[in-house]
Amino acid sequence: MSLEKKAILVVIDGLGDRPVKDNKTPLQLAEKPVLDELARGGSTGLMSTLGRGIIPGSDTAHLALFGYDVNRYYKGRGPFEALGVGVELREGDVAFRCNFATVDENLRVIDRRAGRLKDEGAELAKSLQGMNIEGVEVIFLSSTEHRGAMVLRGNGLSPAISDTDPHSSEPLPVMESEPGEASEGAKKTARIVNKVVKESKAILSSHPLNKKREEEGKLPANIILTRGAGIYEKVESLEDRYGFNSCCIAGSALYKGVAKYVGMQVPHIEGATGRLDTDIEAKAKAAREALRKFDFVFVHVKGADNAGHDGDLEGKLLMVKKVDRLAQILSKEDAYLIITADHSTPLSIRRHSSDPVPVLIYGDGARRDKVQSFDEVSASLGCLGHLTGIELNRIIVDLMGCGHMVGS
Amino acid sequence: MSLEKKAILVVIDGLGDRPVKDNKTPLQLAEKPVLDELARGGSTGLMSTLGRGIIPGSDTAHLALFGYDVNRYYKGRGPFEALGVGVELREGDVAFRCNFATVDENLRVIDRRAGRLKDEGAELAKSLQGMNIEGVEVIFLSSTEHRGAMVLRGNGLSPAISDTDPHSSEPLPVMESEPGEASEGAKKTARIVNKVVKESKAILSSHPLNKKREEEGKLPANIILTRGAGIYEKVESLEDRYGFNSCCIAGSALYKGVAKYVGMQVPHIEGATGRLDTDIEAKAKAAREALRKFDFVFVHVKGADNAGHDGDLEGKLLMVKKVDRLAQILSKEDAYLIITADHSTPLSIRRHSSDPVPVLIYGDGARRDKVQSFDEVSASLGCLGHLTGIELNRIIVDLMGCGHMVGS
Repeated sequence: MSLEKKAILVVIDGLGDRPVKDNKTPLQLAEKPVLDELARGGSTGLMSTLGRGIIPGSDTAHLALFGYDVNRYYKGRGPFEALGVGVELREGDVAFRCNFATVDENLRVIDRRAGRLKDEGAELAKSLQGMNIEGVEVIFLSSTEHRGAMVLRGNGLSPAISDTDPHSSEPLPVMESEPGEASEGAKKTARIVNKVVKESKAILSSHPLNKKREEEGKLPANIILTRGAGIYEKVESLEDRYGFNSCCIAGSALYKGVAKYVGMQVPHIEGATGRLDTDIEAKAKAAREALRKFDFVFVHVKGADNAGHDGDLEGKLLMVKKVDRLAQILSKEDAYLIITADHSTPLSIRRHSSDPVPVLIYGDGARRDKVQSFDEVSASLGCLGHLTGIELNRIIVDLMGCGHMVGS
Repeated sequence: MSLEKKAILVVIDGLGDRPVKDNKTPLQLAEKPVLDELARGGSTGLMSTLGRGIIPGSDTAHLALFGYDVNRYYKGRGPFEALGVGVELREGDVAFRCNFATVDENLRVIDRRAGRLKDEGAELAKSLQGMNIEGVEVIFLSSTEHRGAMVLRGNGLSPAISDTDPHSSEPLPVMESEPGEASEGAKKTARIVNKVVKESKAILSSHPLNKKREEEGKLPANIILTRGAGIYEKVESLEDRYGFNSCCIAGSALYKGVAKYVGMQVPHIEGATGRLDTDIEAKAKAAREALRKFDFVFVHVKGADNAGHDGDLEGKLLMVKKVDRLAQILSKEDAYLIITADHSTPLSIRRHSSDPVPVLIYGDGARRDKVQSFDEVSASLGCLGHLTGIELNRIIVDLMGCGHMVGS
């Protein structure tokens, strides 16, 4: 098949919600004239990204939205974080999400975020480069604030090991990484991780930036904690599958990472912060520019998820307003515009939930249903019915003219 | 995850139906102000418990509603009946549903229900205890009226054998149980069952209670007929899976048995008869009390299914009225209230059917859709869309805060 029309997929992270006021969800409460106009002019429906009643993670939800079966392709979050911060992964690399943290002399975690670093991460990460343990190369890259990624590169590694991050707000000790299976690879990998963590304590404790932080009364970022181990396997790209090229417009490392994993180009977008303060005009501009060179443009907007996790209604409403503006700009392009969320992050529970999210497809080929508003309840009567992420991806690919007929 | 809110699941057995009068189903005809009010205030949808067009059994439908995949977990009805009447099953037990029946001297079945026993079942079952055939222990327990359960306990048994119950209203002879596969276990089990049935005839024929029945002009309960052989395997409980404890409020053995199978506590409820005359106030009270100690309370109401099998419209309408009262009481609790049916039992065909049943979720986190009435047609426009039993279970578990995220 050959391309018939380009498409823009806008994913508003964590947008879906439950009733918060007057029995209405934030989307039902929000002023969003453009989104409602597009709903009136296009097809709507609901989506349970991984299936009804299944709570999606951010990584798995996006894999599904790009058409990749989670059961087959999901290997842990680490590789996506590493790809997202710019590591060029090789087959067999084992990657981790990591935090700079603060521990006391007994290795108890005082603060998992080391008092939320400002810009010191890159400098601290540099000091950790060059470790080589049992012939395995250790790569660090920092991301925003206290966040970063670690990659182990060498032979015979296994991702079947436990986290060293105790995942608690209590001052628990750093965990020993344990092999999760009897293999030599898992034993070796756990051993290396434990050595790296110990070594990071030695290096970071004496780092000048930490001395400075302590002098300023701040917590030192004196250890790294690892979690989300995953092995990298190269997969066929969207271009291999469907013949179209694609581009990711996002601010947060994870989403850039998933996009890279499936072969998208991932330019740096100045002003895309992955927070409520993201510059939506900059993202809209970047998306429009990308559309000149690319067939499929994925635009990720993170803030609504943050607002959900913080129970911040005003923040969520602000993000809807920003997305309404984004939709206004992008709906003028000669491309299908698909607007949806990866999952719900209801304000009342401050976590991801399985509550379905609305989907909107706008553009010449989209059937026009009777739905008048872009929200979780109205869209339940839309002509798209109830989709999974994989199904939505297939529908988009077909609208683009790039699907494969089954049979003849 | 940890519990965010408790839940009550009310299953109105066989509630779904087809049009019976003025093109309306019994639910559309019924006065049910509370159910309609809850529908207006919550989320609604339809459910095909095992999938579209699949006719659910009572046992399989409940397995699915509790989140257990029927293909993997369903091993025949016998074990549920045995658990339901109070047998503490062990791994490898082969259990049967059985009837006390009346046969003539040629072992032709005159009445499969022995003229529907009153209270003699327990006494008759006692007389059958203590049989041991080929090293296999035989356990009997009576249930309501002519019903009971039999368990074979010993090594090398197989459930792959046929019924001895001819399942006919014609006076057919008692069937020989035949092995359904070539295994020694099946041959042995069939052999034992045939001996037990023969032996039951000898014991029961001379039982004083049967002499008395005959003197009173009643049919003697002079044999037991077996069906629904199934092997018992212990499965992970709801608590193992989700971390919440649970309780079953039911009158009929089968539902108690399925509940026990998945690890629920199953108290005896005085007044819960499993018939149209069930004491709904007693069940409501028991459910409210259970909610103090348990996170998940399953309330089963049987009568509507009986009415469906009897083609009894008035009976079905009466049960809807009773459930409306139940809903009134339970909707006041600080818990999600989910009301649905396991399957349809249309009055016009007097059997289970695959027609979908309405689902209603009421409680703080439930999105409010536009549906105004709790019935099969109105609920088809609800925001839950069309669910399977497994999907409804996952949605409930997530609402409770006990789901597992896929990915991170």
